[in-house]
Amino acid sequence: MKAVVVRDKRLLVADVPVPEPGPGEVLVRTLACGICGSDLHALKHADRFFENYRRPDGTRIADLARDIVMGHEFCAEIVDHGPRTARRFPPGTRVCSVPVLQRPEGRQTIGYSNDHPGGYAEYMRLTETLLLEVPNGLATEQAALTEPMAVGLHAVNKALLQAGDKALVVGCGPVGLAVIAALRLRGVRPIVAADFSPRRRELAVTLGADEGIEPSPAIPPARWREATVVFECVGVPGVIDEIMAGAPRGARVVIVGVCMEPDTIHPLRGISKELSLQFVLGYDGDEFAATLHHVAEGTIPTRPLITGKVGLDGVASAFAELASPERHAKILVEPWRER
Amino acid sequence: MKAVVVRDKRLLVADVPVPEPGPGEVLVRTLACGICGSDLHALKHADRFFENYRRPDGTRIADLARDIVMGHEFCAEIVDHGPRTARRFPPGTRVCSVPVLQRPEGRQTIGYSNDHPGGYAEYMRLTETLLLEVPNGLATEQAALTEPMAVGLHAVNKALLQAGDKALVVGCGPVGLAVIAALRLRGVRPIVAADFSPRRRELAVTLGADEGIEPSPAIPPARWREATVVFECVGVPGVIDEIMAGAPRGARVVIVGVCMEPDTIHPLRGISKELSLQFVLGYDGDEFAATLHHVAEGTIPTRPLITGKVGLDGVASAFAELASPERHAKILVEPWRER
Repeated sequence: MKAVVVRDKRLLVADVPVPEPGPGEVLVRTLACGICGSDLHALKHADRFFENYRRPDGTRIADLARDIVMGHEFCAEIVDHGPRTARRFPPGTRVCSVPVLQRPEGRQTIGYSNDHPGGYAEYMRLTETLLLEVPNGLATEQAALTEPMAVGLHAVNKALLQAGDKALVVGCGPVGLAVIAALRLRGVRPIVAADFSPRRRELAVTLGADEGIEPSPAIPPARWREATVVFECVGVPGVIDEIMAGAPRGARVVIVGVCMEPDTIHPLRGISKELSLQFVLGYDGDEFAATLHHVAEGTIPTRPLITGKVGLDGVASAFAELASPERHAKILVEPWRER
Repeated sequence: MKAVVVRDKRLLVADVPVPEPGPGEVLVRTLACGICGSDLHALKHADRFFENYRRPDGTRIADLARDIVMGHEFCAEIVDHGPRTARRFPPGTRVCSVPVLQRPEGRQTIGYSNDHPGGYAEYMRLTETLLLEVPNGLATEQAALTEPMAVGLHAVNKALLQAGDKALVVGCGPVGLAVIAALRLRGVRPIVAADFSPRRRELAVTLGADEGIEPSPAIPPARWREATVVFECVGVPGVIDEIMAGAPRGARVVIVGVCMEPDTIHPLRGISKELSLQFVLGYDGDEFAATLHHVAEGTIPTRPLITGKVGLDGVASAFAELASPERHAKILVEPWRER
């Protein structure tokens, strides 16, 4: 099958074997798969990413010396059932899944793996018991956004919101936008969204922010004063400390952005204001299912996020384009797209 | 009166004016005052300390060009009442107080101030409404430990303990010991205490830890595995990141140690395990009063903490001795001590 592989730390289209579904697994045709900021990061800082990203037993999840097929934000269609499956859904059923395989040896990553191709390929294998049927009437491209939007829902759940909370979201890339959508769903008001890009501030308001502000050169003290909960959705060194400097006394800071590098903080900023920092990652199965439901109901808006679509041949250039926040939020890869 | 002053960033005994109690204030004779690690730090890093330690309005709390009388862990005896006081307690009553003056212009620090001498002096002025009477039968030297023990009680309150929590306390100086006493009071089991000093590990067990362990060269993974809540009571750069590396998934880290310098963390360590960091500082009035009650009842033990007593002439050498964790935990200054 055709797939975009990471080889020699570059993206290229290659022919790779169609994965064989093991016991309890299904073979699916990838219909759409979002490009995630983590994929850009994994490619740009490949050595560090795959050095740091390890299984609970300490082993690396993937080896850069072998091909890796990325892509973990997908909607797919069932093609075939492997051995010992319940055949719960007939072939042709559109499904979403958390991007893992549940195997006897433990959970295996889909999308950051040498063995289990992700959504930048024509086919994947998925664990049958993890499949969620895409509701009738929900567009495939929107269903593919379940995964990134679940990240926002989880972050907001971990914020342990209280009545009267006022939110500041720092960074309005897809992660920040997902947080904004989840905050809106929970009825938090106001939601203030900070981003350097006018286009992203606009998107933030479309997704549910009450106001988009420019953080340049810094978010003004008056904007900080009101925030009881602050979401860090940038993930580059220095941002956590800036938030600690600006956040008011007692604020809870939820760190959703994934900063892979060492970072400097001034603990005294946290101490003098009794801040809390809650680091978060991913979502659980219930949050993923709830997100698909909300995406289908439209209570988590997804349409405005989709700013481009490419076939496998366009993935490498889409990665390059995503560096500019003015043009794009989410680009979907459609492996079967004609072009 | 005689007082130990910070002058030219050194400690010396000097004659300074007896403070005059303002409206709502009382004049007290200092009976005992503990030497706090923060005082050692304030002296050693005087420029940075008084540069960083500012009032909410941004002004510095004290000016190093003028004398500063430190000491904020005190027990004192009422000598005289200023104007507009209720004279709630007669002269001779032993009292404790949070180390602040409640003034029309706002709360003023006692002990880190050019204007309001702390407990390393024969007399202080205190706000009458903040006074707590020392219960009959409670030794003055134990009452003086109310302030540092309240820090532990507050830290444990901010940890939002849940049933089944297991605690690891990193660092067994007075702050760590206060945390251990408060954890024991709350019935947390086990409490594991880590410190390089055998003497401090012993004290930790005396204060209520189930076990003292040596963190050298690092706390072993098996010790981390159980901890659901970790207290950082060291306050030097690098410790927060070490705790983030060792703490198990989902652990809450309460940062009680006051690290005044910039510090490096690896956010990925927090993210991959969804850690939370709660920075804490001080205590409130209710926690202070509750601590005095527990100190009097013996449910917060204080006697083992007191390892030395000095007069004003001995303060400078006591500061030097406190650098060694083997000999001392808490040294009390008794300004009226004959020697």
